[in-house]
Amino acid sequence: MTRKPALAVVGATGAAGAVMLQILSQHADVWGEIRLLSSPRSAGRKLAVRGEECEVSALAEEALDGIDVAVFLAPREVAERWAPIAAAKGAVAVDTSAAFRLEADVPLVVPEVNPHSVRVRPRGIVASPHDTTLALLPAVGALHAAFGLRELVVSTYQAASGAGRDAVSALRAQLSLVAGTELGAGPGDVRRAVGDDLGPFPAPLALNVVPFAGALQEDGWSSEELGLRAETRKILDLPGLPVTATCVRVPVVTTHSLAVHARFENEVTVERAHEVLATSPGVVLYDSPEAGDFPTPADVVGTDPTWVGRVRRSPDDPAALSLFVCGDNLRKGAALNSAQIAEAVAAELGSGR
Amino acid sequence: MTRKPALAVVGATGAAGAVMLQILSQHADVWGEIRLLSSPRSAGRKLAVRGEECEVSALAEEALDGIDVAVFLAPREVAERWAPIAAAKGAVAVDTSAAFRLEADVPLVVPEVNPHSVRVRPRGIVASPHDTTLALLPAVGALHAAFGLRELVVSTYQAASGAGRDAVSALRAQLSLVAGTELGAGPGDVRRAVGDDLGPFPAPLALNVVPFAGALQEDGWSSEELGLRAETRKILDLPGLPVTATCVRVPVVTTHSLAVHARFENEVTVERAHEVLATSPGVVLYDSPEAGDFPTPADVVGTDPTWVGRVRRSPDDPAALSLFVCGDNLRKGAALNSAQIAEAVAAELGSGR
Ligand SMILES: NC(=O)c1ccc[n+]([C@@H]2O[C@H](COP(=O)([O-])OP(=O)(O)OC[C@H]3O[C@@H](n4cnc5c(N)ncnc54)[C@H](OP(=O)(O)O)[C@@H]3O)[C@@H](O)[C@H]2O)c1
Ligand SMILES: NC(=O)c1ccc[n+]([C@@H]2O[C@H](COP(=O)([O-])OP(=O)(O)OC[C@H]3O[C@@H](n4cnc5c(N)ncnc54)[C@H](OP(=O)(O)O)[C@@H]3O)[C@@H](O)[C@H]2O)c1
Repeated sequence: MTRKPALAVVGATGAAGAVMLQILSQHADVWGEIRLLSSPRSAGRKLAVRGEECEVSALAEEALDGIDVAVFLAPREVAERWAPIAAAKGAVAVDTSAAFRLEADVPLVVPEVNPHSVRVRPRGIVASPHDTTLALLPAVGALHAAFGLRELVVSTYQAASGAGRDAVSALRAQLSLVAGTELGAGPGDVRRAVGDDLGPFPAPLALNVVPFAGALQEDGWSSEELGLRAETRKILDLPGLPVTATCVRVPVVTTHSLAVHARFENEVTVERAHEVLATSPGVVLYDSPEAGDFPTPADVVGTDPTWVGRVRRSPDDPAALSLFVCGDNLRKGAALNSAQIAEAVAAELGSGR
Repeated sequence: MTRKPALAVVGATGAAGAVMLQILSQHADVWGEIRLLSSPRSAGRKLAVRGEECEVSALAEEALDGIDVAVFLAPREVAERWAPIAAAKGAVAVDTSAAFRLEADVPLVVPEVNPHSVRVRPRGIVASPHDTTLALLPAVGALHAAFGLRELVVSTYQAASGAGRDAVSALRAQLSLVAGTELGAGPGDVRRAVGDDLGPFPAPLALNVVPFAGALQEDGWSSEELGLRAETRKILDLPGLPVTATCVRVPVVTTHSLAVHARFENEVTVERAHEVLATSPGVVLYDSPEAGDFPTPADVVGTDPTWVGRVRRSPDDPAALSLFVCGDNLRKGAALNSAQIAEAVAAELGSGR
């Protein structure tokens, strides 16, 4: 291929889409044409990318003509229907939804962890993991390579924007209702103040935490909890790895955090774990609690890597570590990881497959 | 003793003190005289208890004359100095600070779990556990009695008021700065908006979570993490129990939440765990996620029990459960538990020790 490859961004007007446009502007020399697509609702809107105004078109068969890579930052149903169409038209589809992540013939890729997987894509589709998985994997993948992972217990602190732009609006509206009040100290007062404006959440999020994310699946587990488990196993190629997750939404706009307890095959020390994390791609070690240095969402938002702090060895088990990780769910969690995958595909196409 | 016992509340003007006054008004027939004490700063203030205005006095030797039970809801240093003085004057001191919790000759009591311990108090001091421990123990103690606890991995979602009334003011001030803005989406913007008004927290709490609570102790662990471990072991009388905690502060006013992963000696089922939890004192089972029923701080605040939901059995280990618990840190976490201890002591005194 001598011309630069053409990219379609399906869902350019959404929460992850907005960040994708920033990333495309920063990585400006990769792509030839960039086409911005959405539902008919947003068609005609103009968005800035690479310093130019670009008109959004409605997703349709013709809109995918001549496209080399189509990144889907759109609802699952849209990807389910349209990623195979894009692939049939000769594009590689990179999907960030849950539609294909666990399909055996679709690779699930974190470029820092399993870059090779991107090349084997029998259906012309590559999946990008869930945003919580993406906050976890750069760090845990590196530790696995060094010490051999045996078990994971994870609790999440997930930001509102992981549920899309409407979720952020709902959180902001709720915060405006509770700020400047004495709410949060009496039974049910936050719920009464917030009323029915819950957005996509099953309970108020302002001045609250909500221990349920995703849809209910078997035996009381949520789709996000089982997804984190299945995706981690697939990406690390550890099909029997015990993984227990509790997924909780917190009143943060963007950037997911995870408290991680990891048990390894071999003994670990904090020093060795620090060395591994400090030298791993896509990871920033930020762990000097005596200086107040540990990652928080407010400091991590807007940055690319997974930040890791609070690395502690279990006093009961010399092969177990606890850590706290933060990753921007819209950047690495969605737009950046899919851009990295798309760029890997573009490089492969450019090298003349 | 024919007269009703006399109670002193040291720290009546604080966050936990305010809740204690409510509880004393609800349990109005237990005590004879109730004396409200504080630092000289608040002496002379009038507070309502049992429907009457009561003047606050400064803590001093004379202020403890004739007192049968002195509950300390005051800073650790105050308890360290004054609980032994109260005991020397013949009172039983019930302390909610960390001062004596881990002393071998001071019982650490959760009345639903180890009620007998209150009677053996060689120093005349009884300690009440940390608020996170108190949210955890009613539920985990019941499950231990049924299934035999083998290991705990806990991540906390701790409310601001666990750090006292000034912490609540700091959170509210921060929320007023960020509400109605677009903050939280850009790197460092929350930190810049909040400036130096961090209150007692090491990072902004509005639109953020802060993975550090307490003071730094050995090997990167915080005092709250090691405290949860040591207190759980002491209360359950399981000195070798592996307990790993990561303590995280969240922008909630009152009520701590914990994501708990518990491994037992025996196989468990969700049904059996439900039966145990539904019939345990101090516990409310609230676990129908299909109906949106799981505990959140906004619903639990102001109530007495520990609420438990999201009970799930590990798909990897038939002897492990995950659960989510919420407990009001000012009620069961401080004022209620110490009131229960004080009332147990009063009953013992009344029965003519
Ligand atoms: N948010 C995250 O942190 C995150 C992380 C990882 C993965 N993801 C995945 O990324 C996808 C998008 O998430 P988001 O949070 O950005 O959602 P969002 O803010 O709700 O945006 C949805 C986007 O999809 C477009 N869309 C909706 N229906 C469409 C249709 N029928 N045809 C074409 N486009 C359509 C929307 O266009 P209109 O403007 O026309 O409505 C909008 O651009 C989801 O699958 C999600 O699971 C999100
Ligand atoms: N907050 C919780 O959720 C919680 C839970 C479990 C245990 N605790 C423990 O309860 C204690 C109080 O916590 P809090 O959150 O209520 O704190 P707080 O809101 O800061 O209140 C502190 C109280 O202690 C009094 N005090 C301070 N210095 C004193 C002195 N030198 N002599 C006598 N009284 C003095 C204060 O009186 P002034 O008005 O005169 O300053 C005030 O009444 C702490 O030890 C804490 O660890 C708290």
